[in-house]
Amino acid sequence: MAGKSKDYVVGVDLGGTKILAGVVAETGEILGRVKAKTAAEAGYRNVLSTLATSVDLAISESKIPRPRIRAVGVGVPGPVDPETGVVKIAPNLGWKNVPVKKLLEKQLGLPVLVENDVNAGTVGEHRFGAGVGVKDLVGIFVGTGIGGGLIFNGTLYHGFSKAAGEIGHMIIDVNGPRCGCGNKGCFEAMASRTAILRELAAAIRKGSKTVLTKTVADKNMRQVGSSVIADAFFRGDKLTVKVVKRAARYCGVGVASILNLLNPEMVVLGGGVVEAFGSEYVHLVAKAARKRTFEVTFQGVRIVPALLRDDAVLLGAASLAREKAERAE
Amino acid sequence: MAGKSKDYVVGVDLGGTKILAGVVAETGEILGRVKAKTAAEAGYRNVLSTLATSVDLAISESKIPRPRIRAVGVGVPGPVDPETGVVKIAPNLGWKNVPVKKLLEKQLGLPVLVENDVNAGTVGEHRFGAGVGVKDLVGIFVGTGIGGGLIFNGTLYHGFSKAAGEIGHMIIDVNGPRCGCGNKGCFEAMASRTAILRELAAAIRKGSKTVLTKTVADKNMRQVGSSVIADAFFRGDKLTVKVVKRAARYCGVGVASILNLLNPEMVVLGGGVVEAFGSEYVHLVAKAARKRTFEVTFQGVRIVPALLRDDAVLLGAASLAREKAERAE
Repeated sequence: MAGKSKDYVVGVDLGGTKILAGVVAETGEILGRVKAKTAAEAGYRNVLSTLATSVDLAISESKIPRPRIRAVGVGVPGPVDPETGVVKIAPNLGWKNVPVKKLLEKQLGLPVLVENDVNAGTVGEHRFGAGVGVKDLVGIFVGTGIGGGLIFNGTLYHGFSKAAGEIGHMIIDVNGPRCGCGNKGCFEAMASRTAILRELAAAIRKGSKTVLTKTVADKNMRQVGSSVIADAFFRGDKLTVKVVKRAARYCGVGVASILNLLNPEMVVLGGGVVEAFGSEYVHLVAKAARKRTFEVTFQGVRIVPALLRDDAVLLGAASLAREKAERAE
Repeated sequence: MAGKSKDYVVGVDLGGTKILAGVVAETGEILGRVKAKTAAEAGYRNVLSTLATSVDLAISESKIPRPRIRAVGVGVPGPVDPETGVVKIAPNLGWKNVPVKKLLEKQLGLPVLVENDVNAGTVGEHRFGAGVGVKDLVGIFVGTGIGGGLIFNGTLYHGFSKAAGEIGHMIIDVNGPRCGCGNKGCFEAMASRTAILRELAAAIRKGSKTVLTKTVADKNMRQVGSSVIADAFFRGDKLTVKVVKRAARYCGVGVASILNLLNPEMVVLGGGVVEAFGSEYVHLVAKAARKRTFEVTFQGVRIVPALLRDDAVLLGAASLAREKAERAE
């Protein structure tokens, strides 16, 4: 009964603009959801204080007695050493070498596990979403950039310096467009929302007609959301259809590289772009990947949309915290 | 003492032209080496009969009493299901669905493990060569084509349909030259010996001067060996230097993709091209990879030449057979 009594964990998704927290049961049920503003400009101590308050609030809203909370898992937007819980760098938060685990454990009096958000999201999909029971799974999240997570033999793979999963920086066009990282033709520079907007803007400059002309001209490109592009796509705007289909094909090229290299059982596609364009996008990706893989590599492999949307990171971080606590028993 | 008495295994490298067999001690020492012609045209039953005879001969030449031989490991040039020991396809041998394990166990009266040769070579380098003690390692073998093997957490990774490691078919130039597999811009189509010869031939057709003009014109391209190209390279033949350096850079692009995705501790470069061009080639590859990776992904990672040359497959197959037998105890 002693083991059973600590049967809840808290999962937190620390994003650049908002913090999501919730108490997670073993079944993956989320109780006492809390949402707060990150306010990164106030500095990391303030952000972590807001985060700790959100955890406390989620616990009290969940009506689960605090002694039954076993641990806290936090997903953060940057590379982390999950052993030390130090966030090496988080550009969206302006962080460098922040000892998140240490600071939060002091404030919360609970064991804290810190993981990269994309890794956590992949684990979330593996434990409670599209990939339950799958042995080898690759998660690909397509939004402003492209990130990924790798699960081999049911376990999150970190690599030598805990930096594995930079899927967005696989090179798929050695002479391709410049990527934010400084290199050319990265997967991210070919298939992310940023790439789609860059291609739309270039075509507009060259005189192509599209319903998005005003939107793309008015806004900072990073502020044009996937849903705005998806509206134009589903209304049949010719330029948008062409550009999005090409980006989906490039996504399929990246998936093909991953299938040929890793031959996973499943590829889970998530993130804002995938959510906005839905199953049509996933279908285009799978078609392009199939064309570029061996029959033996493609056969039986499932390329599927993520299921958990905004809950993936929270649930994955919670799972990892729970599993670490169980291993320590 | 019962365990100790069966302390040897036989390793076999079954190639398209020759069979290498040897008795392998726990230390990796090879006793009683035997070499035979494959003679694939005589059909798989004859090839396997030659292979079995080579195993018997290696045992008798090693002077190790047969009761001390625990198992036999065979590396084959094609995808294998290592559980069933069925070789799915081996183009160099003209094989399709050959039950190698079953047929050899019947002939030899010993447990047989069958593995893809590139996977076995990677394991060989990991157990006895460049990668001893490394946790996560990627082996890349550059020759006529490019193959690879993946070791995660010290264990060979097979993937969903046992087809992982088709590194040569990661796409690094989506609009690049046609690959033997039918797709465009595969790593293999950019950086293998076949790619180097294709570029040399194209430049010669366009009128470039090179000491290799006659060689490339006279021979079937597949028959021009890496050492011939290396001679021209080390003599400073301008065209050869240019083409080889470009191929090495492309190899670095492939390595960069792998580092960004997998963040391994070590990349071992082997195969005929790497052996022929030596440390200068490895250096060019590392330089190109460094340019295309994050500091955190590249730092501390070792990109090194393979050490075992022709023994890698034999030693790796032997290790896998030994480890399987030990697990079964």
